[in-house]
Amino acid sequence: MPEADLLFRLASLNTAYASCIDNDRLEDWPGFFEEHCLYKITSADNHKRGYAAGVVYADSRAMLHDRVSALRNANIYERHSYRHIVGMPALRGGDDGKIATETPFLVVRTMRDGRMDLFAAGVYLDRLHTATDGALRFTERLVICDSSRFDTLLAIPL
Amino acid sequence: MPEADLLFRLASLNTAYASCIDNDRLEDWPGFFEEHCLYKITSADNHKRGYAAGVVYADSRAMLHDRVSALRNANIYERHSYRHIVGMPALRGGDDGKIATETPFLVVRTMRDGRMDLFAAGVYLDRLHTATDGALRFTERLVICDSSRFDTLLAIPL
Amino acid sequence: MPEADLLFRLASLNTAYASCIDNDRLEDWPGFFEEHCLYKITSADNHKRGYAAGVVYADSRAMLHDRVSALRNANIYERHSYRHIVGMPALRGGDDGKIATETPFLVVRTMRDGRMDLFAAGVYLDRLHTATDGALRFTERLVICDSSRFDTLLAIPL
Repeated sequence: MPEADLLFRLASLNTAYASCIDNDRLEDWPGFFEEHCLYKITSADNHKRGYAAGVVYADSRAMLHDRVSALRNANIYERHSYRHIVGMPALRGGDDGKIATETPFLVVRTMRDGRMDLFAAGVYLDRLHTATDGALRFTERLVICDSSRFDTLLAIPL
Repeated sequence: MPEADLLFRLASLNTAYASCIDNDRLEDWPGFFEEHCLYKITSADNHKRGYAAGVVYADSRAMLHDRVSALRNANIYERHSYRHIVGMPALRGGDDGKIATETPFLVVRTMRDGRMDLFAAGVYLDRLHTATDGALRFTERLVICDSSRFDTLLAIPL
Repeated sequence: MPEADLLFRLASLNTAYASCIDNDRLEDWPGFFEEHCLYKITSADNHKRGYAAGVVYADSRAMLHDRVSALRNANIYERHSYRHIVGMPALRGGDDGKIATETPFLVVRTMRDGRMDLFAAGVYLDRLHTATDGALRFTERLVICDSSRFDTLLAIPL
């Protein structure tokens, strides 16, 4: 596949992923991942130090579904609004037929009373795979946040 | 047209649209729309509830021109700076040859004294049409804002 | 080269440029420019007035290397984190085989204690050139900031 076409498919995938979260269709979110996958939210500091643990960690699609259930039970009240702004992916030269990318992101939060703030910024370090049904899915999405404070970051997937 | 080419044309159109507003060339802004069109700014809450009314509503290019005249008369003093950051469009599967897309956006405002704040975030829900002159134009642009507070949002088109 | 392919190469270049700065690989930053080049940070106000001077000004790759050395000497302490979010480039119709583009950007800063703020917003006005080694490089990058306050803007390249 020509590189421009690939980048477009990746950009479209990121838009669909963000739209899924921002429109509160969390139940669809695990479908962006392969069954055997790695999803992790961590800080740039911890990532640099090579710490394997993340604030959020899941290594299967089933665990992602569990996470959505937990969020649904925790968020009894109407949640704030979130808006992902995702940059263009940069190819990181995946080996062995895998696609590896780095993509900057920013998430803005809007409170129920209209106040807005910067919620999270960082990069996605992704590995992707074209499934047998032709769909691109994540085998790995590491969410590397610029901030090391995670008190509120657990409200939604990033 | 291959999908990648279409997405690129849409992304270029969004960049040109934002540049027109952010560079204060408001008089060119109605030219992005078909003569018979729908432009509406509303909140996510009101959109979900199916309310047809918007904080800003125009159903023709002439009404958009009127809106620009009104803004020019209202903004006697030098205005703040605005900067749109627009994400990649996601195709929503337009029917009958129409193109339908969903595109996240963020607008940052810079005051005359240098202070910056988050001005607006949300999605564009668009329908587009390739005119006989070959140009892509909006037949519909619904600006769905995450916030329901619109006190200041009337200063510029979004 | 078809326009969609060109836009993709430009978007990829911008992502790589931002990644270089945000990941603190400043020593690689001058490599994005031709040896004879113009790099300038200025305000929208000063740009409109036609002032040639910028807050930061360099007209060769060697001067960009000097700037990096100066930043390295000035920033003794661990620096804040920066995250560029760069929009899609709009072609400005470069003459004589040159490529000219306008691209919106936003930079978010994350402090060591986790606080985040809007650091800079504006547009890149670029001229680019395909070098004999096939790489796209900047012959000119004007960083036009919406704000005219530059007290802190000198901490990193934009």
